[in-house]
Amino acid sequence: MFSDAAPSPWQPVAGGLTAPEGFLAAGLTAGLKPSGKPDLALMLAPAGAVCAGSFTTNRVRAACVDLCAERLAAQGGLARAVLINSGQANACTGARGLADSLAATAAVAARLGLAEAEVLICSTGVIGVPIPLDTLVAGLDPLVEALAGDGGNDAAQAILTTDLVDKQIALEASLGGRRVRIGGMAKGSGMIHPNMATMLAFLSCDAGVPAELWQAMVQRAVERSFNAITVDGDTSTNDTFLAFAAGEPLDASQLGSLEAGVTAVAQHLARAIARDGEGATCLIAVQVEGASDGAAARTIARTVCGSSLVKCAIHGRDPNWGRIVAAAGRAGVPLDPEAVALWLGEHQLMEAGQPLPFDRAAASHYMKERAAGTYLSADPTKGDTVAIRLRVGSGPGSGMAWGCDLSDQYVRINADYTT
Amino acid sequence: MFSDAAPSPWQPVAGGLTAPEGFLAAGLTAGLKPSGKPDLALMLAPAGAVCAGSFTTNRVRAACVDLCAERLAAQGGLARAVLINSGQANACTGARGLADSLAATAAVAARLGLAEAEVLICSTGVIGVPIPLDTLVAGLDPLVEALAGDGGNDAAQAILTTDLVDKQIALEASLGGRRVRIGGMAKGSGMIHPNMATMLAFLSCDAGVPAELWQAMVQRAVERSFNAITVDGDTSTNDTFLAFAAGEPLDASQLGSLEAGVTAVAQHLARAIARDGEGATCLIAVQVEGASDGAAARTIARTVCGSSLVKCAIHGRDPNWGRIVAAAGRAGVPLDPEAVALWLGEHQLMEAGQPLPFDRAAASHYMKERAAGTYLSADPTKGDTVAIRLRVGSGPGSGMAWGCDLSDQYVRINADYTT
Repeated sequence: MFSDAAPSPWQPVAGGLTAPEGFLAAGLTAGLKPSGKPDLALMLAPAGAVCAGSFTTNRVRAACVDLCAERLAAQGGLARAVLINSGQANACTGARGLADSLAATAAVAARLGLAEAEVLICSTGVIGVPIPLDTLVAGLDPLVEALAGDGGNDAAQAILTTDLVDKQIALEASLGGRRVRIGGMAKGSGMIHPNMATMLAFLSCDAGVPAELWQAMVQRAVERSFNAITVDGDTSTNDTFLAFAAGEPLDASQLGSLEAGVTAVAQHLARAIARDGEGATCLIAVQVEGASDGAAARTIARTVCGSSLVKCAIHGRDPNWGRIVAAAGRAGVPLDPEAVALWLGEHQLMEAGQPLPFDRAAASHYMKERAAGTYLSADPTKGDTVAIRLRVGSGPGSGMAWGCDLSDQYVRINADYTT
Repeated sequence: MFSDAAPSPWQPVAGGLTAPEGFLAAGLTAGLKPSGKPDLALMLAPAGAVCAGSFTTNRVRAACVDLCAERLAAQGGLARAVLINSGQANACTGARGLADSLAATAAVAARLGLAEAEVLICSTGVIGVPIPLDTLVAGLDPLVEALAGDGGNDAAQAILTTDLVDKQIALEASLGGRRVRIGGMAKGSGMIHPNMATMLAFLSCDAGVPAELWQAMVQRAVERSFNAITVDGDTSTNDTFLAFAAGEPLDASQLGSLEAGVTAVAQHLARAIARDGEGATCLIAVQVEGASDGAAARTIARTVCGSSLVKCAIHGRDPNWGRIVAAAGRAGVPLDPEAVALWLGEHQLMEAGQPLPFDRAAASHYMKERAAGTYLSADPTKGDTVAIRLRVGSGPGSGMAWGCDLSDQYVRINADYTT
C-alpha cells in the first residue's frame, strides 16, 4: 500500500543528476556561506535540451524565479544550464536582485559559449541579503572546469542549506529496447508547503520529448509529488523545480512509462524533503480514497499532513484519530462523515464515521517502531513512515500526500534561527 | 494603533453574560468531567429573544451543531435557552449523538416550560465519546434552580476545558438616552485541543433588534473577531457562536453604535481565546493596510498570524521580517511586493519591498517586553501583545487578525495528551 519501490520497469542506479547520458554537473565552495561548506553548483544539459519549470505561487518571489520563468517562456522551453547558489535567497533585494541574477547568468553563458537566455539561476538561503557577486563570479572558472559526467553528487551537496542529508536519486529502465535514465536532486527542509515551497529540485532525463508534452508531463508529476508534501505550511519566495530532457526522441508508445519514471523520481525527492523537515523524526504518508476525484483526495491528504495537531500527536506516538478526522473535515472538499473509515498502519480505528475499539498500545507501538525505522526504506515494514489511510466516501478519487511530525526541536530551530 | 479599549461610548461593566437586563445563567458540576470541575451551564434569554448563530465550517461536525443550525433556521432565529456541557464533544458519535442532543434539550424545555425548538445545545470535550446522559439529566433540576441574574460567572467557569483562564466581558453604553448592555463569554484554548475540540462563545444583548438585522450584524462582527484569529490552523468539529438579543427595540439610528459594541465584545473574546492558545506566551496582533479590500487585508493578516515560522520567530523574540513578508505573499490575495512596508511595534523594518537598517537588539527587546506584559492589557504599551503592521499596496482595504506564538510547550501539550 505504501511501497517506496520504483514502479517496474524502473530500477535505481547510481549517479544522481548526472546518471542520464550527456548531463554534466559540478559543485564547490565559492565562499558564499560563512560555514565554508559547498555553496555553488552548475548543471549543463546536452544541446537541444528542453526544460520544464514549475515555480512558487508566492506573490513575493525572488528575482531569479522571475528570470527563470521569463526565459523559459521566451525560449519555448529551451535551456541548457542552471547555476544554483546557496547562502543567499536573493529575495526582497529590489532592483539589485535582478541585476545580480542577470550578471551571474551572463558570466556563466560567456564561459560555456551559450546565449544568456539559455542559462537559468536558482538561489536559496537568507532572504533580504544580496549575493556577494564578486565572490560568486570568482567561483565560476573553477566550477566550469569541474563540470563532469559524475559531478551529480558534488552538485547535490552544494545546494543544501539547513538540510541534514542530501537528496538524490537516479532510475533506469529499458523502454522499447533502449536504456533511459532519469536523475534528480533536491534541497529543502523548512518553509515547505510547495505550491511550490524553499525547496529547489532538479531533474535530468536522457530521452528526447517535445517541449509541450514534457511540460505537461512534468506538471502532472509535480501535482503528485512536490505539491503533495508539507512541512510547515509556509510557501517560500524561491521554490523552483526545473526538469531537463535531452536525447534521442522516445517513441510515443513509451511516454506513459517515461512519465511513471519522472513521477517516481519527483516523488522520491519530495518525500526526502518532507522526511528532512526541521526537527522531524518520521515521514507521514496519508492515502485518501473514495473522494470525488484525485485532486479532492490529495487536498484532504495534504490537509491531514499539514495539521499541527496531527503532527504533534504523531510526534508523541499518540493514535489520536479524532484529530485526523477533524483535519480531513476542514479540507474544504466534499467528505461524507458517515462513510469515514480510518487506518493507522494495519490498525483500523474508525468505520462508518464512528470509532472502533482498537488496541491503543499496539497502535502506539506501531508509531514508535516507525521512529526507529530505516530512513526512507523501500520496505514499508522497516521504514520510518507512519502510514495513515482514510476512506472518505464512495467516489473514485484517490491520492496521497506526505509530511512529517512536529517536534519541540522544530520550534527551537525556528525560534533561534537568527538571534 | 492597537488599542484594546472599547470604542466610545462603550465602557466595561461587571457581570459577563448576565450583565444585560433579563438574562439568567447558571453553572455547576454535574459529574461529566473526571476532574470534578464545573461542567454544565445554562443560559435563559428573555421572552422574544432572537438568536444569531455562526457554526464551524468543518464537514465533520457534532450532532449538537446540526441541531442548533436547524432549529435556528426553522424558527426564524427565535430561541430562548442554550445548554452547554463540557467533558464530551459528542462528535463522531453517530445516531446516538443526535438522540442524546434531542433528549437533553427536551429535558431542559420541559423544566423551563419552553418548546423543544426554542432550546439549543453546545458540547465541548473529548471527540468520539458519548455524553453520559443520565448524569447530565440528573444535573438539570439543580441547574434550573440556580438560574440567576448574576450567574454569568458560574456559567463561564462551567464551559471551560483546557483553558487556563475564563473569558468574559460586558460593555455598557447610553444609546439615544437609554442604557444598553452587551455581555459575553467564551471557551477555547488553542481553538482545538487534542480530542478536546472547540471554541464556544456566547453573547447577550438587552436591546431588541429584528432577527435579520441582528443576524447580519453578528455575522459582520464574527468576520472581524472569531474568523480573524488562529491558534493552530485547526478548525474544530463543534465551533459555535450564539448571540442573543432581547429587549425594547432600539432606534434604527443607534444600530451602528450597537454594532460597534457587539464587535468589541466579540473581539475581546476572540483575543482572549488566541492569547490562551496552548503554550502561548504572548498575543500577536497583525494590522494590514493598503489591500484591495477589507477581506483581502484580513486574509493576509490571518495568514501571517498562522505561519508556523512567524509564530516560532516571535516565540524566540527574533525580528525575522523575511518570514512575515513570505507569509503575506502566499495568502492568495493581491499584494504588491514593491510596496511592502513593515513595522514591528514602533520599529520599521521594511519600506518599498526592501529591508531597512534597524536596531535588531531594540526590536528583539520590544518583543521580550511583550512576553512580560500584562494579560490583555487595555494599554498597548504595557500589554502582552506583539504588534505587526504591514502595508501591502495603496488600496483602501485594511483589517486585523490575532494569534499567538508557537512554543515547544505547545508541542509537548499536544504530543503527550493521551499517551
